[in-house]
Amino acid sequence: MSVFDTDIASGWLSRDELDNARERLPMIYVEAIPVRVDDHGNICDLGLLLRPRPDGSISHSLVSGRVLYGERIRAALVRHIEKDLGPVALPRLPVNPVPFTIAEYFPDESVSGFVDPRQHAVSLVYIVTVTGECQPTQSALDLRWISPHEALSEDLAADMSGGQHRLIIAALAHAGTI
Amino acid sequence: MSVFDTDIASGWLSRDELDNARERLPMIYVEAIPVRVDDHGNICDLGLLLRPRPDGSISHSLVSGRVLYGERIRAALVRHIEKDLGPVALPRLPVNPVPFTIAEYFPDESVSGFVDPRQHAVSLVYIVTVTGECQPTQSALDLRWISPHEALSEDLAADMSGGQHRLIIAALAHAGTI
Amino acid sequence: MSVFDTDIASGWLSRDELDNARERLPMIYVEAIPVRVDDHGNICDLGLLLRPRPDGSISHSLVSGRVLYGERIRAALVRHIEKDLGPVALPRLPVNPVPFTIAEYFPDESVSGFVDPRQHAVSLVYIVTVTGECQPTQSALDLRWISPHEALSEDLAADMSGGQHRLIIAALAHAGTI
Amino acid sequence: MSVFDTDIASGWLSRDELDNARERLPMIYVEAIPVRVDDHGNICDLGLLLRPRPDGSISHSLVSGRVLYGERIRAALVRHIEKDLGPVALPRLPVNPVPFTIAEYFPDESVSGFVDPRQHAVSLVYIVTVTGECQPTQSALDLRWISPHEALSEDLAADMSGGQHRLIIAALAHAGTI
Repeated sequence: MSVFDTDIASGWLSRDELDNARERLPMIYVEAIPVRVDDHGNICDLGLLLRPRPDGSISHSLVSGRVLYGERIRAALVRHIEKDLGPVALPRLPVNPVPFTIAEYFPDESVSGFVDPRQHAVSLVYIVTVTGECQPTQSALDLRWISPHEALSEDLAADMSGGQHRLIIAALAHAGTI
Repeated sequence: MSVFDTDIASGWLSRDELDNARERLPMIYVEAIPVRVDDHGNICDLGLLLRPRPDGSISHSLVSGRVLYGERIRAALVRHIEKDLGPVALPRLPVNPVPFTIAEYFPDESVSGFVDPRQHAVSLVYIVTVTGECQPTQSALDLRWISPHEALSEDLAADMSGGQHRLIIAALAHAGTI
Repeated sequence: MSVFDTDIASGWLSRDELDNARERLPMIYVEAIPVRVDDHGNICDLGLLLRPRPDGSISHSLVSGRVLYGERIRAALVRHIEKDLGPVALPRLPVNPVPFTIAEYFPDESVSGFVDPRQHAVSLVYIVTVTGECQPTQSALDLRWISPHEALSEDLAADMSGGQHRLIIAALAHAGTI
Repeated sequence: MSVFDTDIASGWLSRDELDNARERLPMIYVEAIPVRVDDHGNICDLGLLLRPRPDGSISHSLVSGRVLYGERIRAALVRHIEKDLGPVALPRLPVNPVPFTIAEYFPDESVSGFVDPRQHAVSLVYIVTVTGECQPTQSALDLRWISPHEALSEDLAADMSGGQHRLIIAALAHAGTI
């Protein structure tokens, strides 16, 4: 991810240093599930980023990224949403700064079921309403909006990796839409 | 409250029947704390309704009202917000349908510290972001926006009744603004 | 449910009056999902009450009951847990008095998906750890402990009515066990 | 802190490496507010660790510590509770793995109001019921149990540092005890 590299290049930690730290310390991440809601706050659609996999298939993933040294969690969320959804997505962060769930990623799948081969990451996961136009940027091919019903399908589960589909289920449960 | 009477007149329960039920059954209420937020979701201001008290002083209160038979909680919230803040307040209900706190009102103050001389009411309390123009209607004189700092003051505590100032403190704690 | 009748007989509301109110006012309920946990707070088992259905099949249901006039929510929870699980279940109520989810039951299934033919009920749903011996009483045949894995099965979904299986899914999502 | 040193010695990170990482990466912490509750889950007392300050005064603090590489959050919580409260405190972790609040500590007080001169730490804060005997160990002189009423006092605020008193207020608000 180039922006990620830029963050690092702009002075926090060199790539080597980061790689080294990743083998020794848990990293802290934020993840966001972008949603569109109706006038009563019910989720109409969830947004997923489409990214090519090395094998040519398409993976569906969440907005996600690292919290930098000195950065507030809310600022990290806004930064990663802008990075992935473009500058006019107009996200509305929840008033409650506590994530609706926490995902603990480990290189070894057996620990928690959430997998990240690169690192141990503690990820704070938020549902974020977007009210503007999303223009996926970076390495994402596109943003796909799906209904809560589609979001629960086995098909989608197969298209998400690292255990992220469980976060979709948890989000819909949290929103009372399951 | 005239709208409240209208609800009743329009067919759910006569005033006598409601008074009778109130002596026998807990009533279910919703309360909303209207807030304005910045781009990162931090609370900038809280909105309080100003209402004249019989003794000539001014009370500060929350948006509040009963859930009607057959009505969804979210619909009751929207209805009472429109009733108290006008039709263009543009409220944004949270995605999570669970209230951030519950207030149990009783005629007897010693039970929970929340008092309603008329009834036992179980009140589901929400923080609701408003993004439009608020035009207080009904029996309210005005809507006053106050900062989180002012909201925690002893002065405000004295201007709120029934224990509602505790809900303000709980809201700010929930929002990480205390 | 005899205890329920006793509550009423002991002075709050006659059966006729209650039936009448049920056609006019939302009733407030509590529901509890009893769980057993390990030393780290992970859910090991969920407890479901087995009850005969009129057609001879067995339904699986949650601990559930009405909040009475004048009664605190926590007291209603403890009362219904004792009623359904016996006097030595040793429930440990969560410190947070806010339910993990709210179920809105209506006679008409299309409103929310939660159905109660008798009434409109707003149900506050809690996960409650039990640390003692459960001795199902009342109309329940037995209490069955099932694993989180079994709890998510289609088979169980078919054995629960009124939409309660969705509450099981929501509970496991809330507990990070999905 | 010897246990902490042992963790490090046993292979995660040398003290020098940790100091170095602390200047570049946010660290992830857990904090616990130990409480004793009544049969209905109401908080009776909160437990605070007493520690001597360099100036001879006594500070009151929470159970707190770092999440290690490869460690689950719940395991870190249990480890730090045992470290600070002894082996027979019998903590009961909440079923919900999401903290009730998050504290973001920075060397610079102006960022969030939570201060840690050593590092940027993202701290997941939990209320943990303890049911056994607490025997404060390590560097703590003693454990002091205080009522919710005392916990809100200005005196206590002066005896806590880094902004931790705000976490006490948030905990009591979360528990409906404010």
